[in-house]
Amino acid sequence: MRAIILFGHGARDVRWREPFDRLIGLWRAQHAGTPVELAFLEMMQPSLEEAVAALAGGGATQIIVVPVFFGQGGHLRNDFPALLEECRGKFPGVELSATPAVGEDLAVLQAIIDFGARAL
Amino acid sequence: MRAIILFGHGARDVRWREPFDRLIGLWRAQHAGTPVELAFLEMMQPSLEEAVAALAGGGATQIIVVPVFFGQGGHLRNDFPALLEECRGKFPGVELSATPAVGEDLAVLQAIIDFGARAL
Repeated sequence: MRAIILFGHGARDVRWREPFDRLIGLWRAQHAGTPVELAFLEMMQPSLEEAVAALAGGGATQIIVVPVFFGQGGHLRNDFPALLEECRGKFPGVELSATPAVGEDLAVLQAIIDFGARAL
Repeated sequence: MRAIILFGHGARDVRWREPFDRLIGLWRAQHAGTPVELAFLEMMQPSLEEAVAALAGGGATQIIVVPVFFGQGGHLRNDFPALLEECRGKFPGVELSATPAVGEDLAVLQAIIDFGARAL
């Protein structure tokens, strides 16, 4: 069974996660057949490992991690691959892959441009 | 004259800003009549004040700042309003306003969901 993890940076302020809670709600409403979990790099729970454990416990055998980051900076180029590799070691029965950061997607960037244009 | 600033967090890794460079390119291609600058909270240039100075120097009298952040955490609730207020003091001839974070916009969140769904 395939599943997805929406992976964000995390922040001290709990209100920072509101868009992530909306994202997981949208996913569940639109893609009910594909289990989803949030995960955070730091300062928020669950961790990537905890999210993988939850999905694997529910029967996921293939998990795609979507980094909800704008840019592919140090976190995504260094910290994230190391975390992913750790998870692969701990969950050998799960095939773990990752997409580029959502900020690499032209449709996401276009939605940001359109949001700005509506404010004019 | 109205202008816009796309305001991001900034990061140590210069490659992090690639989506921001694409954003400003998209804006210029689609909204050529509205000058645009990037600005960053930390670790990258220009600062918000530098971007306001550049746009004001080009004749902008009304500037809308779009925070290219997912969540409204401490940066947007505390640091950003203080910076904005400082700029208002330094550029009294410019009317400065700000939108919510782009992550508050449903179309932006939907684009993220669609990006994840295409990876399945």
